[in-house]
Amino acid sequence: MAVTAFLTTCLRGAGQVMFQNNPVTGALILAAVLWGAFASGRPAVGAGAVVGLVVGTGAAYLLGVDVRTLRQGMYGFSPLLTGAALPTFLGNRPSTWILLVLGAAVTTVVTLAIGNVFTTWNVPALTFPFVLTTWILTLAAYQFAVIAGSLPAPALPAALGPDAARFGADAGALVTAVLKGVSQVFLIGNWVSGLLILVALAVNSRWAAGIAAAAAVVGTLVAIGFGADATAIGEGLWGYSAVLTAVALGCVFFRPSVRVLLYALLGTVFTVLVQAALDTVVAPYGVPTFTAAFVFATWLFLLPKRDLVPTPHHEPVPDGVLTSKGAT
Amino acid sequence: MAVTAFLTTCLRGAGQVMFQNNPVTGALILAAVLWGAFASGRPAVGAGAVVGLVVGTGAAYLLGVDVRTLRQGMYGFSPLLTGAALPTFLGNRPSTWILLVLGAAVTTVVTLAIGNVFTTWNVPALTFPFVLTTWILTLAAYQFAVIAGSLPAPALPAALGPDAARFGADAGALVTAVLKGVSQVFLIGNWVSGLLILVALAVNSRWAAGIAAAAAVVGTLVAIGFGADATAIGEGLWGYSAVLTAVALGCVFFRPSVRVLLYALLGTVFTVLVQAALDTVVAPYGVPTFTAAFVFATWLFLLPKRDLVPTPHHEPVPDGVLTSKGAT
Amino acid sequence: MAVTAFLTTCLRGAGQVMFQNNPVTGALILAAVLWGAFASGRPAVGAGAVVGLVVGTGAAYLLGVDVRTLRQGMYGFSPLLTGAALPTFLGNRPSTWILLVLGAAVTTVVTLAIGNVFTTWNVPALTFPFVLTTWILTLAAYQFAVIAGSLPAPALPAALGPDAARFGADAGALVTAVLKGVSQVFLIGNWVSGLLILVALAVNSRWAAGIAAAAAVVGTLVAIGFGADATAIGEGLWGYSAVLTAVALGCVFFRPSVRVLLYALLGTVFTVLVQAALDTVVAPYGVPTFTAAFVFATWLFLLPKRDLVPTPHHEPVPDGVLTSKGAT
Repeated sequence: MAVTAFLTTCLRGAGQVMFQNNPVTGALILAAVLWGAFASGRPAVGAGAVVGLVVGTGAAYLLGVDVRTLRQGMYGFSPLLTGAALPTFLGNRPSTWILLVLGAAVTTVVTLAIGNVFTTWNVPALTFPFVLTTWILTLAAYQFAVIAGSLPAPALPAALGPDAARFGADAGALVTAVLKGVSQVFLIGNWVSGLLILVALAVNSRWAAGIAAAAAVVGTLVAIGFGADATAIGEGLWGYSAVLTAVALGCVFFRPSVRVLLYALLGTVFTVLVQAALDTVVAPYGVPTFTAAFVFATWLFLLPKRDLVPTPHHEPVPDGVLTSKGAT
Repeated sequence: MAVTAFLTTCLRGAGQVMFQNNPVTGALILAAVLWGAFASGRPAVGAGAVVGLVVGTGAAYLLGVDVRTLRQGMYGFSPLLTGAALPTFLGNRPSTWILLVLGAAVTTVVTLAIGNVFTTWNVPALTFPFVLTTWILTLAAYQFAVIAGSLPAPALPAALGPDAARFGADAGALVTAVLKGVSQVFLIGNWVSGLLILVALAVNSRWAAGIAAAAAVVGTLVAIGFGADATAIGEGLWGYSAVLTAVALGCVFFRPSVRVLLYALLGTVFTVLVQAALDTVVAPYGVPTFTAAFVFATWLFLLPKRDLVPTPHHEPVPDGVLTSKGAT
Repeated sequence: MAVTAFLTTCLRGAGQVMFQNNPVTGALILAAVLWGAFASGRPAVGAGAVVGLVVGTGAAYLLGVDVRTLRQGMYGFSPLLTGAALPTFLGNRPSTWILLVLGAAVTTVVTLAIGNVFTTWNVPALTFPFVLTTWILTLAAYQFAVIAGSLPAPALPAALGPDAARFGADAGALVTAVLKGVSQVFLIGNWVSGLLILVALAVNSRWAAGIAAAAAVVGTLVAIGFGADATAIGEGLWGYSAVLTAVALGCVFFRPSVRVLLYALLGTVFTVLVQAALDTVVAPYGVPTFTAAFVFATWLFLLPKRDLVPTPHHEPVPDGVLTSKGAT
């Protein structure tokens, strides 16, 4: 593949994190990620995203995957996230970069594997290859003296309780939280990055930009309404999964309509609950949930099919090995 | 849909929790649930079951599902259980009812999703949509100040040990435990409700009633034999999953025969072990197992198929992306 | 089935743990297991392996499975491992043997179930039926006073930290660790057994023997490089999953070539990371990971398929129940 074609493929891969097959969108998103990484004093996170994107796309090329989907960036978006996540949680040290290159390549293998499984039901793998690979690498860190990091401390889940500090009704703080919610899709908590990502979306699809912004508001407000941890709300951690679910359901896999938007709204609110449930599930393991809430909620809302007839309760299925001798 | 048709659909949905497509059975089951809820001073549990049943069935209607299976009650039984579980574990407060309506609608979406996945192997979703949705909602409760409840405290699993109190050899206590085991299918610990549910089954199928009663005995005796916690045995908590597995394997998905009953017996005993394993798995999360033991054990015993030829070890599968370049 | 045919079937089953359809290989492997069990003063582990093999194979015969694959030993290898694991972790007591016979029979049911699911993607069940069944039985042990054992104590994961004791650079200790890594496939930590198993492999396939030895070296060295716990390395606990993945990917499901061996190497290194991740996941439950790291890593590396086209992001999938009313 020529260098230009490879670069375009990588940029489209950056855009595909938000389902946009557009190199300009991808370039703006990369700029937003790099801005957020530098602004927070963690340039390794931005560098990791770029390395992950390039290694994952290159691994797909070496594995000889379908060229058309390769060029759409379908093998770049998950490794990009793997590459952003590892320096964030394992620190900027040599072992992190070994794991990052290995992990980005494995993310591509996992993309092929999960894609093969879910294509059975005409549903995409979404960012699950990133989530699965990065869960494995961060969980593995606990067993190795050479790998360490800034992972959350393992703890049994504790109910937040009615006395927990609540998010204040400050309009400015709310706007910041919402925009950070958009940027947290890329593990970046920076409202400028969030704004730039919305612009990147608008370049390719105004529906996508509008739905993303609305979903960040919905996710944040639902979290405020249920009384989630105020710090996490302020960091945009209740927005990013909602953003991804809403864009996926609202204008990528279904065509926008009133029915579809209501369905996407239900899915978006449900994503907030899945996010909370996953926070509880990972608590004893001291690893983040990444974009798992989006993945699981979106799968559940994409899997229903028109005129689906469930396997019935009222008549026997072919009765298996038990009567095979009696057959004929 | 006319009101009468909708009501009949709902009653069949209540019957389908126990695999019975019969509105009279469903009505008697609902009566048993309401009796048990009122008798224990928790009318909200009974009301929640009814609301869940109606909302879930209505959501299926609005989503435009297959009408024939809708009318068989296939979209009512899981939301009914979601509706009974939430007031039981999250208390009777406004946030519970918001989650209940949302959760019942989502349970229907999840029913379509899981049904679509498992129809690939001609196996039904069973009550997994209830289990999954209610796990998500109860796990989520830990992250929100507004939602609280009477969930078990998260704890690392601790071996029961040889000195634990054992269930006494009292015939009356055993009969009560067995009948409560039947009613615990609906999160109700009431022997009168259990008896009424057996009558409800007998109205539609004497096999189902007989197998359910026998399985409650088997589940309880196996738990006693292995030395499970005496209080849980007395509350019927070792019976309900066994009851559901036995009815499913013994007379719903296979036709009763000596071979089938032996296979169902193996599955029923195994269900008790799956129940114990799941109790250990959920311990750090402080949520119940609901009917997951039945679902997982029954799936494993339904999935084997006649003359199934496993993917072999001795000859290469098509060798994938690795040699795609070598292909003609 | 005649006694001789049944015995040959059982011996092939022992060989199939390492993917070898050869009764001589199976006999040598059984000898290695029995030697290791007796040498460590735990003859019950060897007896359990034999009982599991016979019961599981017999259960498959009674269930009327496909005769050709039955005779290849495809229903013997997982129950053999279930039979070796239970006396290892639950001790040599009556309840263990009841669970062992029950568990070996259930392992065969689970083999049929998981095989049916994964044949959808032309991927085998591997030893997952052993892992799943034995996880259930060991997790269940915590809930029963009658069952106890020598399970690891449940604990939240704790990072090993940079000060942990490291594996010494002693060539003799390394060779022992590598050979024990081969024998740990069968839950045996004995270098003579490991050597005998390599001989058993060479009888049927020199590729398998060479790859197994190389993978035990790779797994052990990667664990040393990342600074894993020194005692576990010395016991061969970082070798066995790598051995199984490497043999599966390197010469069983793909034909050996430079590309395939590089792919198998990536899969083998990844298996070490999956093993570490699973060690973290099971820590709060106090159960071992068994061969789960091999199973999960190998599935992920077998699932990619030639010219696979993933479900796209850029065009709507059939839009499901949401617009079914609008159709036609």
